[in-house]
Amino acid sequence: MTDYRTGLGKTAANYQPLSPLSFLARSAAIWPERTAIVHGARRQNWAETYRRCRALASALVAQGIGANDTVALMAPNIPETVEAHFGVAMAGAVLNALNVRLDAPTIAYVLRHGEAKLLLTDTEFAPVVKAALAELGDAAPIVIDIADPEGPHAQGGGGECLGIMDYEALLASGDPAFAWRFPDDEWSAISLNYTSGTTGKPKGVVYHHRGAYLNALGNAVTWSMGQHPVYLWTLPMFHCNGWCFPWTVTALAGTHVCLRRIDAASIAAAIGCFGVTHLCGAPIVMNMMLNAPEPVRAVFAGRGLAMMTAGAPPPAAVIEGMEALGIRVTHVYGLTEVYGPVTVCAWKDEWNDLPPSERAALRARQGVTYPVQEGLMVAESMTHAPVPADGATMGEVFMRGNITMMGYLKDPNATEAAFAGGWFATGDLGVTHPDGYIELKDRAKDIIISGGENISTIEVETVLYRHPAVLEAAVVAAPDAHWGEVPCAFVLLKPGMAASAEDIIAHCRASMARFKAPKRVIFGELPKTSTGKIQKFLLREAARSSSAHD
Amino acid sequence: MTDYRTGLGKTAANYQPLSPLSFLARSAAIWPERTAIVHGARRQNWAETYRRCRALASALVAQGIGANDTVALMAPNIPETVEAHFGVAMAGAVLNALNVRLDAPTIAYVLRHGEAKLLLTDTEFAPVVKAALAELGDAAPIVIDIADPEGPHAQGGGGECLGIMDYEALLASGDPAFAWRFPDDEWSAISLNYTSGTTGKPKGVVYHHRGAYLNALGNAVTWSMGQHPVYLWTLPMFHCNGWCFPWTVTALAGTHVCLRRIDAASIAAAIGCFGVTHLCGAPIVMNMMLNAPEPVRAVFAGRGLAMMTAGAPPPAAVIEGMEALGIRVTHVYGLTEVYGPVTVCAWKDEWNDLPPSERAALRARQGVTYPVQEGLMVAESMTHAPVPADGATMGEVFMRGNITMMGYLKDPNATEAAFAGGWFATGDLGVTHPDGYIELKDRAKDIIISGGENISTIEVETVLYRHPAVLEAAVVAAPDAHWGEVPCAFVLLKPGMAASAEDIIAHCRASMARFKAPKRVIFGELPKTSTGKIQKFLLREAARSSSAHD
Repeated sequence: MTDYRTGLGKTAANYQPLSPLSFLARSAAIWPERTAIVHGARRQNWAETYRRCRALASALVAQGIGANDTVALMAPNIPETVEAHFGVAMAGAVLNALNVRLDAPTIAYVLRHGEAKLLLTDTEFAPVVKAALAELGDAAPIVIDIADPEGPHAQGGGGECLGIMDYEALLASGDPAFAWRFPDDEWSAISLNYTSGTTGKPKGVVYHHRGAYLNALGNAVTWSMGQHPVYLWTLPMFHCNGWCFPWTVTALAGTHVCLRRIDAASIAAAIGCFGVTHLCGAPIVMNMMLNAPEPVRAVFAGRGLAMMTAGAPPPAAVIEGMEALGIRVTHVYGLTEVYGPVTVCAWKDEWNDLPPSERAALRARQGVTYPVQEGLMVAESMTHAPVPADGATMGEVFMRGNITMMGYLKDPNATEAAFAGGWFATGDLGVTHPDGYIELKDRAKDIIISGGENISTIEVETVLYRHPAVLEAAVVAAPDAHWGEVPCAFVLLKPGMAASAEDIIAHCRASMARFKAPKRVIFGELPKTSTGKIQKFLLREAARSSSAHD
Repeated sequence: MTDYRTGLGKTAANYQPLSPLSFLARSAAIWPERTAIVHGARRQNWAETYRRCRALASALVAQGIGANDTVALMAPNIPETVEAHFGVAMAGAVLNALNVRLDAPTIAYVLRHGEAKLLLTDTEFAPVVKAALAELGDAAPIVIDIADPEGPHAQGGGGECLGIMDYEALLASGDPAFAWRFPDDEWSAISLNYTSGTTGKPKGVVYHHRGAYLNALGNAVTWSMGQHPVYLWTLPMFHCNGWCFPWTVTALAGTHVCLRRIDAASIAAAIGCFGVTHLCGAPIVMNMMLNAPEPVRAVFAGRGLAMMTAGAPPPAAVIEGMEALGIRVTHVYGLTEVYGPVTVCAWKDEWNDLPPSERAALRARQGVTYPVQEGLMVAESMTHAPVPADGATMGEVFMRGNITMMGYLKDPNATEAAFAGGWFATGDLGVTHPDGYIELKDRAKDIIISGGENISTIEVETVLYRHPAVLEAAVVAAPDAHWGEVPCAFVLLKPGMAASAEDIIAHCRASMARFKAPKRVIFGELPKTSTGKIQKFLLREAARSSSAHD
């Protein structure tokens, strides 16, 4: 055995902590004049963006922010949100981007639990933030207002200023040549993202510099993005740090195209004006695009757009619609705990010749690991014994590797439970197909057990989406005296379309085992989280009370 | 300050050492049927390649190879060389790929210094390897012969078997489902690459798993390679582990197209048959392609090939010629100590409109850091004070970051000297342009780069001085249309002694690899400084003008 120590070990010459902050410094050095950020009429190049991020870091330090302090942010996809993804960490601090749709008590809870010392807040959200701050009283953080010229404040639409100064004044107080802080350790926190708390209080998921760096590169390689992508911000940056794309797009010296409002007209305007090449979003964004009026829809066609989607398997009809527009859809899957997406339905050329419905079924699978994640399996929850790769045996989805959170903030018991046995337990249920690709069948808590048989709500929803009149659909368990549980469908019809509950049920029975078909259909809007996920726990309550009245 | 420790720290769920071995396992799992390696009539998919690498690892362990043992390889760009880049490390061992042009004493020196326990050797090189083994005597490693069906052995062209068995027999003795060894620590050796020994004996540069992983991704991102590149092996894999491309191409589930012989006809045949998309090589390879007969040249045209080159700035005429063939040339720069390329002349769209000669001049610069390397500067050698970015002030090129060697094997003093002040001193001289791009102005002192291989002038001079008639000798580079540079010797004979140029060249060839021997000998007094040092810059001028008159 040769002694492969070489005398010095790690030195500044041959070891540096991995951090996505490096990407900003590099892009600003090489491409200073290239457009980094577009927002309305605003254009900002990489040199200016780097200067502003350094000024932000400097100003935060002057406000008393130091290593491992939490800086919270309440803002939509605007330039300040991109800047906060760098400037906060350049002060040695940790970014906690808040979901802008949260209510005041939850905001107060998160700010208190995360120990935020400073809050950057867009004036659009002044009412709810004001209420949250009132709840915190003396424990409230320093507040800085962001008055976006594209926002309601500047348009005279309200938006009270709550803080000690405006974001631009804060930046003006900072040093644009600040000698910012590179992390001493790649295993140190870069951001804090709260789960939606479907099973109790939100949990604070901690990301580190190493994971952020690696998943930034992972996105670039997995999606073959090339240099200088023009990336449209249809995915909220407060959601798993925008799946790490603030760092990916910066690493590739691309352009961040910001969007305050996610609607088909805004998306079309941005795509039409700025040469967008890539965008991400939940299937609901694809729905928006497909169901837009024809002149808007036409903007999306034939541009060779690449879209990454996750959140729920995109229904076949949606994928087919996107393909018809020439949009290449990549289906990924992940959770807050794994920096956003860590699996991808890696496409195979030989699938191109299959009929559209088969292609869509293949593409709806969650697939295989990102190249930067190490392990993925569907296994028995307790023993971790992998299920057979038969496409039928259900198990829990487990992951491991460098794209997994440090843990839950101040909740070692929850961290330990999530990491039991050296795997992160996702709580999602799925199968492994013979080709090794995994497919989700349900959240563990969403599965319906009817007469002892498991019913995958995803499977039922996939069939519902094939009905021509259905715009959105969700299936949950309703209590049933005889079967224990039965499927109950919630459906939003397309504008101007009609279908009866009987039609819908008949449509389902034509495509699946009778016991899986919904026993009841309830029409109306579906409640959603701020990231576009349907809130099934509310639907379950509705189904329960509806059953009680039968 | 928030306590951002989360209770558990690093666990198997959220931390795994970075290693390019992960890429092979992943590509084999996702793309088992895709072609991994092409060699002559041989086609090998990813599943089979993974099985063979595991069998190799298993068989090596059975031969007594364990953690941090060195396994040497003497082979050209054949499938076994790709396999060794994984199988050796999967046994926990360290790959030492030898330059196949080395002479027997140097091979013996490297095998002894690197403590090779086992040698995989292609039968083409049996004569020189046999001589090296004889020199080692009882200290010789276990020898395994590689009898490549495309090699001279199988074609009846000689190639004695020197070892205990053939490579295929070794693999047959191994377990293709072997539970291979993942490194415990990403900061552990994966390979050992000897420098050409410009300032004395060759030094053993140690690469680790972390750096190999990161530069594999760095290549993919820097070159925007996309999934499934078809990569032609025109760059020797024994040279800085083929710039890490054995790992890059595997990470992208591409195809390794092997080549025993690098000549225009072989390159054209491979490109014509296999849909090659990418290749790397010294400018000499571009010369070969450009100077090929028209029917061969025609094969290269209009295919959208991407070529990465390094070693010497490609001459304008060469770049123009390549552009005329529709080949996109990317100019990179690096050294053995930094895993091959770590800087790239990142191209800017606005340069496309410049005249060809200006484009070529811009493209000949060494440029900016890879996204995975952290620091690059031209600075005063002693103080590390960066030179002004004026394109004129010369300084030494320094680098730092994760793509820098662990150090020199068993030479802590040399490691310490190379890393003084927390920067790797390249010994190359250059300037920084106003746009931040660096450009080399002079090679590390006297090095000669001939056909992409470094030649140490000191090594050649040492041999010259052994000639009984030689009083003084100095070797410098002379420009050469084919090889880029060739060694030119200046010799002062002892009074009363006689020797012809042919005598001197024959003497050198008897003691070193043929490519290192001087191609021309010029007799006379050598110009010296007042302190008696030979003024090589004057000799270089003389060699240049002498070449010009040939």
